[in-house]
Amino acid sequence: MAVVGAGYWGPNLVRNAMATPSLRLRWLCDMDVERARRVLGDYSTVGTTKSFDEILGDPDVQAVALATPAATHFPLAMAALDAGKHVLVEKPLTSSLDDGKKLVQAAEDRGLVLMCDHTYCYTSAVQELRRLVHEGELGDLHFVDSVRINLGLVQPDVDVLWDLAPHDLSILDYLLSPEVWVESVAAHGSDPIGHGVACLAYLTLKLSSGAMAHVHVNWLSPVKIRTMVIGGSHRTVVWDDLNPSQRLSVYDRGVERKGSQELPADDRKQVTISYRTGDMVAPALREQEALRAMMAEFAAAISEGRPAATDGSAGLRVMGVLEAAARSLRRDGAFVALGVDE
Amino acid sequence: MAVVGAGYWGPNLVRNAMATPSLRLRWLCDMDVERARRVLGDYSTVGTTKSFDEILGDPDVQAVALATPAATHFPLAMAALDAGKHVLVEKPLTSSLDDGKKLVQAAEDRGLVLMCDHTYCYTSAVQELRRLVHEGELGDLHFVDSVRINLGLVQPDVDVLWDLAPHDLSILDYLLSPEVWVESVAAHGSDPIGHGVACLAYLTLKLSSGAMAHVHVNWLSPVKIRTMVIGGSHRTVVWDDLNPSQRLSVYDRGVERKGSQELPADDRKQVTISYRTGDMVAPALREQEALRAMMAEFAAAISEGRPAATDGSAGLRVMGVLEAAARSLRRDGAFVALGVDE
Amino acid sequence: MAVVGAGYWGPNLVRNAMATPSLRLRWLCDMDVERARRVLGDYSTVGTTKSFDEILGDPDVQAVALATPAATHFPLAMAALDAGKHVLVEKPLTSSLDDGKKLVQAAEDRGLVLMCDHTYCYTSAVQELRRLVHEGELGDLHFVDSVRINLGLVQPDVDVLWDLAPHDLSILDYLLSPEVWVESVAAHGSDPIGHGVACLAYLTLKLSSGAMAHVHVNWLSPVKIRTMVIGGSHRTVVWDDLNPSQRLSVYDRGVERKGSQELPADDRKQVTISYRTGDMVAPALREQEALRAMMAEFAAAISEGRPAATDGSAGLRVMGVLEAAARSLRRDGAFVALGVDE
Amino acid sequence: MAVVGAGYWGPNLVRNAMATPSLRLRWLCDMDVERARRVLGDYSTVGTTKSFDEILGDPDVQAVALATPAATHFPLAMAALDAGKHVLVEKPLTSSLDDGKKLVQAAEDRGLVLMCDHTYCYTSAVQELRRLVHEGELGDLHFVDSVRINLGLVQPDVDVLWDLAPHDLSILDYLLSPEVWVESVAAHGSDPIGHGVACLAYLTLKLSSGAMAHVHVNWLSPVKIRTMVIGGSHRTVVWDDLNPSQRLSVYDRGVERKGSQELPADDRKQVTISYRTGDMVAPALREQEALRAMMAEFAAAISEGRPAATDGSAGLRVMGVLEAAARSLRRDGAFVALGVDE
Repeated sequence: MAVVGAGYWGPNLVRNAMATPSLRLRWLCDMDVERARRVLGDYSTVGTTKSFDEILGDPDVQAVALATPAATHFPLAMAALDAGKHVLVEKPLTSSLDDGKKLVQAAEDRGLVLMCDHTYCYTSAVQELRRLVHEGELGDLHFVDSVRINLGLVQPDVDVLWDLAPHDLSILDYLLSPEVWVESVAAHGSDPIGHGVACLAYLTLKLSSGAMAHVHVNWLSPVKIRTMVIGGSHRTVVWDDLNPSQRLSVYDRGVERKGSQELPADDRKQVTISYRTGDMVAPALREQEALRAMMAEFAAAISEGRPAATDGSAGLRVMGVLEAAARSLRRDGAFVALGVDE
Repeated sequence: MAVVGAGYWGPNLVRNAMATPSLRLRWLCDMDVERARRVLGDYSTVGTTKSFDEILGDPDVQAVALATPAATHFPLAMAALDAGKHVLVEKPLTSSLDDGKKLVQAAEDRGLVLMCDHTYCYTSAVQELRRLVHEGELGDLHFVDSVRINLGLVQPDVDVLWDLAPHDLSILDYLLSPEVWVESVAAHGSDPIGHGVACLAYLTLKLSSGAMAHVHVNWLSPVKIRTMVIGGSHRTVVWDDLNPSQRLSVYDRGVERKGSQELPADDRKQVTISYRTGDMVAPALREQEALRAMMAEFAAAISEGRPAATDGSAGLRVMGVLEAAARSLRRDGAFVALGVDE
Repeated sequence: MAVVGAGYWGPNLVRNAMATPSLRLRWLCDMDVERARRVLGDYSTVGTTKSFDEILGDPDVQAVALATPAATHFPLAMAALDAGKHVLVEKPLTSSLDDGKKLVQAAEDRGLVLMCDHTYCYTSAVQELRRLVHEGELGDLHFVDSVRINLGLVQPDVDVLWDLAPHDLSILDYLLSPEVWVESVAAHGSDPIGHGVACLAYLTLKLSSGAMAHVHVNWLSPVKIRTMVIGGSHRTVVWDDLNPSQRLSVYDRGVERKGSQELPADDRKQVTISYRTGDMVAPALREQEALRAMMAEFAAAISEGRPAATDGSAGLRVMGVLEAAARSLRRDGAFVALGVDE
Repeated sequence: MAVVGAGYWGPNLVRNAMATPSLRLRWLCDMDVERARRVLGDYSTVGTTKSFDEILGDPDVQAVALATPAATHFPLAMAALDAGKHVLVEKPLTSSLDDGKKLVQAAEDRGLVLMCDHTYCYTSAVQELRRLVHEGELGDLHFVDSVRINLGLVQPDVDVLWDLAPHDLSILDYLLSPEVWVESVAAHGSDPIGHGVACLAYLTLKLSSGAMAHVHVNWLSPVKIRTMVIGGSHRTVVWDDLNPSQRLSVYDRGVERKGSQELPADDRKQVTISYRTGDMVAPALREQEALRAMMAEFAAAISEGRPAATDGSAGLRVMGVLEAAARSLRRDGAFVALGVDE
């Protein structure tokens, strides 16, 4: 395979591709070929090139991983699919939903794997969260609250929503699909440093189940917080990604209303509220590097001829929310329904 | 003075009134006089009564503190003012903004103290926060983010906004007024347990300075979080009220844009972003019970014939935001300007 | 009953005695009767006196609680027992082990309750710890490590061991007795500020089960830590008393050696070590004020005519360790066996 | 250069040697050459060999880094020095102090660099700690307390002191030398799992300045703690290595005795104690990989012909304490002076 892009994320893909036994990394491609050489270091047998065409023409390359700017994802990925290569794309899938749909269709037509690098979905924490949700341990979903803030790299060309929220939205998609999806989204943003785009933003999501999800992303916070609370009727789980010794805390605590229909109307409110205050369990999690597991899934999807766990459709769903959020920002925070054209 | 209401909050007022040297507590009044007696215990010389009129008729009572349900605040406070008593009212001031305005006017006409029990404003943390904001140590205000969530007492008659957000809004008012005020508010709420009112809610506030503030209140969270981040152009402070050994952390960290006007347009974005990554200082704070300091301020305002620090006007401003938030909730989260009738 | 001593601890006893329905507080006694009056405040019906004899002569006083300097515990408690009163004594029981033994004997002879105020034993955390130990959930005891450090009130007349370690030792006694006891102790201390007595100290305790316990007490630490780790063959529990939302964490993690006797000698070491890395459970604990529960136990022991849970014998055992530790300090940290005269 | 040993630590040396521009890694040597190949992976130009002699005979190899079992350090290092190679040795320097002395002498005689891999000394936290100590910001040293516990890899051939305490002791040496050194040590250990060697241990160190230091190491703790408190007369610093956002906290808090000599004897104790309760500062630290900085120091020491910051002498001092501690363990915790033969 080949990795394209030797900037911020590319070196991680290089390192993990090399560590995946079923993959054979042949090329690191970058328009700045010196940068590619620096990434590989002085001891590597992997080749470098600035020619994307050289990679597409190499019959020994079955797959390419794109870690290039978002605007280039569509043309590069489409060319790779056209050349019969499987494609892994860094988030976001493309810059526009329409382009994304074309890619998904192209991959399906050609029977090729198109995978989105939704890295967080391959952490053992998110794997366990998905199990908790899907096996009913949380009960009905009551709410989701996600916070992802720190003194971040202020991006020159995208706002904080397009930079950070794909993480939260891809995790949410992974946890809830296919049973539950986002129906509409309202977004509020602010640019206090005069950067030209929102540097902090809030998303409110109406889910198809009736529950509400909320996302807070912020480039300007001096403290780093990465927390997601998933409230359920049976249990509520708190994911603190910055606490390696206790990433997940599953609380048997909550508020319940019971049997209110059997009571006279006047008594309902006070009588029927009850509180559960049970134990908290922090499940043991395997240590694993998420990117390693993601790369293994890419290899497995190729060899088994099946869609990857975070395939192009998952990428499309995330982009759909981001595009609707962008519209909501322009409409002063009004809810924007997904799948409805402007 | 007299305390009215022996329920959840009344005992705290009783205890602190007794501990304030310049006050003399004569009565604890409650319609359930047995409950009042239980609050006082078996060793107290304070009198109990179920008659509010008895208190109003007692010439030795100069002041009353109301810890009764919100709906009773207006009639009880107005009667007390009419009887020439100074009045301390638990938040919220009244159930409606109009009633609140009448109270403020009545107190002003009679030259009496009307004070709101915005307890948090009297913590040493908020006192220090106010100093940091007003002495310019934070620089220009960039954003405020407040979270107040825990497994709370689900209220039968008010939603989570009216129950918890008065704390955040009164603190915000205390920190920012009179220079900055709330111009409009958008509110999103959810009631996943079918309780009839919102059990979790988010407020987005547009401030007159152009900055944005955000409040998250939630009765259903199994973990308790009480955090406020106040971002500024010079420094950013994080207040964690549940970390007694380090409530305030003042970070000399941030993102800055400098001199962009002197650069050619193409170079602006990337060149002008710079990062400060300086030390963090956790200022030493006096240990003080907020309610004790609040009660002392009530006594001082009476004896000095001046408005209290959190006077009726502060209560009105908080209620104005709450009423606008309630309208926004009914309008699916649209921004509602303050001071504009429906 | 009567409380004697209106200094640091007395007011807590007063408050909790008044809140205990089965007790009737008649007197607060202090040689500085003004101080006693200030403690009671302006609204109390409890009497004050500077005469201990007046209390002993009051036939309505059945019990006295002593919160006076340690040197006075023996004469005051003995006089009270002689007058037929039940006695509660703040830790340490007396200044010398011999005096303590006399008190225990006197109480037994007269059929009176002699109780030590080992407050921590009445927290719900320690109650749960005792349950975990005694019901075998931890398995065999492997080790105990206790840390109690903060910027403390440097005492003029006792060292940090006599000031702070009684807490750790009384908890240890409560958790382990009667099955396991302290056999010998080694103590290291240091006085870096030239105060005349040790301001920080370490105790190493050999337990009768073969396990080792260790205590670190320190008046000079700017950070406050109150942690106890109790390691067992099945589970290990960490008690962090300063984390109210998760005081106890019970870990199903550990190191085990299995079946080594069945293996050839050469293979033993590496083959037989195995690691358990199971879940962590933080049990839900009742909220209760420890001093309230302690006072209720005092009242119950009196009315039921039985020894209190932390009776004079428990106090004697704690003092035995403290005296041995003092000898070890003088002998440069050599182990000193308990129950052996110098 | 060459790295010898492809086990637990060797891969880290390989990775950092490759990333150091002034070094050129030629060989990874291991008796299990397949293991060496696996460490390098499928894309490396670095050579593998099982022959240590081949490395010594390679004139292009100027330096070797040893990551082999402790028992092999002496013969391998001596052979390398004899062959004129500079040597970097994983801790501990050797298995016996005598062997260590011979190595140091041999390196000095030949004018070669002999460096100990005291990795922690190259973290930015320890660099800042050293600055705080040496520039007098802490004042006189009052005490040091170090805790390093977690569910560790129980070693088959060394006890927990030899496995973990070298970290604490090398840091202590780095912070205090040359002005202050360890005079004597007392050690207590316990082996509750019947492993044959101590699995948890405590060291008490008497320093030449009169202050006391204490180290707690433990393989059996389910929670991981890595904390060092360095108390001084002016300030006290807490290093929490597991809190990446606030590794160092410098407290302007403490207890002081002042002017006691001017007071009458009776008044001294109570009058002269005063408390400082100032701010806490968490200094900003550079992000750096310690092992990278250590490798750069090795390269710099070679090229500049000077001893490395953690040279063989530092390794000898650490071993001296470990050997004395081992004797103390055998003598039931009695203090053992350093530099005195058994």
